[in-house]
Amino acid sequence: MNFCSECAHPVALAIPEGDNRPRFVCTACGTIHYQNPKLVVGSLPVWEHEGDLKVMLCRRAIEPRYGYWTLPAGFMENAETTAAAAIRETVEEAGANIELGPLFAMLNVAHVHQVHLFYLARLVDLDYAAGIESLEVQLFGEREIPWADLAFPTIRTTLELFFADRRRVIEGGSYRFHEHDIVTPMRTQADLA
Amino acid sequence: MNFCSECAHPVALAIPEGDNRPRFVCTACGTIHYQNPKLVVGSLPVWEHEGDLKVMLCRRAIEPRYGYWTLPAGFMENAETTAAAAIRETVEEAGANIELGPLFAMLNVAHVHQVHLFYLARLVDLDYAAGIESLEVQLFGEREIPWADLAFPTIRTTLELFFADRRRVIEGGSYRFHEHDIVTPMRTQADLA
Repeated sequence: MNFCSECAHPVALAIPEGDNRPRFVCTACGTIHYQNPKLVVGSLPVWEHEGDLKVMLCRRAIEPRYGYWTLPAGFMENAETTAAAAIRETVEEAGANIELGPLFAMLNVAHVHQVHLFYLARLVDLDYAAGIESLEVQLFGEREIPWADLAFPTIRTTLELFFADRRRVIEGGSYRFHEHDIVTPMRTQADLA
Repeated sequence: MNFCSECAHPVALAIPEGDNRPRFVCTACGTIHYQNPKLVVGSLPVWEHEGDLKVMLCRRAIEPRYGYWTLPAGFMENAETTAAAAIRETVEEAGANIELGPLFAMLNVAHVHQVHLFYLARLVDLDYAAGIESLEVQLFGEREIPWADLAFPTIRTTLELFFADRRRVIEGGSYRFHEHDIVTPMRTQADLA
């Protein structure tokens, strides 16, 4: 941030009165420009048929992480709820008809100023189709998940938590809400090269 | 938003390519300025002694809602987790030492582009003191809560959910995670006059 979005004069970092951390403050009109974490919201759409469970993933057609697999998710918009955001992103990226379940995971990604939320979801039918931000959409059983080609650490963590819970559900337990902090970026093939 | 924070030229509302809603876009450098919901995070600090339970509330020393009662909460900052934000706000507003429990409530307040999160918390001691944003800090049993003088609808809803759960806890149940949408602003004394 270089300039005030209200009056176009330069901003400077300063600690406002009564505050305790530096903010971008306009040198002319004094407007304080706060910067806060963003919510990324999505779903974990599941198709279950005769005890065989599959999870829907989308292969990204956009950067970052073009070509890698993700759960349908994206930045929450103003004037919508988290549940509405999860449904919208699932429609936009996978063209999928879902029945939204409870919030399943909240993942803090503090180093990129994000909080990711994933809802459980049930696919109502198999009439899905890749949206403009997806190369393809596919259903995967646990052993078929492209674990090495997942787009983000929050996707890996959410899927791991889901399949762990799933084993408890089979034994009569239930899905629980999980909170988890992502403290290190996921290593990629590029990092390992 | 009137001007680009990158280059100081005017912005205009336009739907970027591949997008489906109007954004503030710079007429010179093309930067898209997204606006997204903010997270407000706080705690519900509880002091329990010989079966007598009290909840900590703070009376606001700042606008909006100066003089009204709130749970300690505030805007989440970049580079922190939701749990860290809840503890920080409780320290800043109430000077309270808490042991943070699980996330208790997520409240969508779509009409003001906010998501509020409240964690359960246990007061470790009674060495609390009003911070700069609070006029006073006080412990209240359920019947003593100043229901008519609460600052925000999310505070009322969180307290109602808490005391309802509390009755189940006494009967052997447990606190649960709650998601709730706030669809109408709370009516105030001023509205009723």
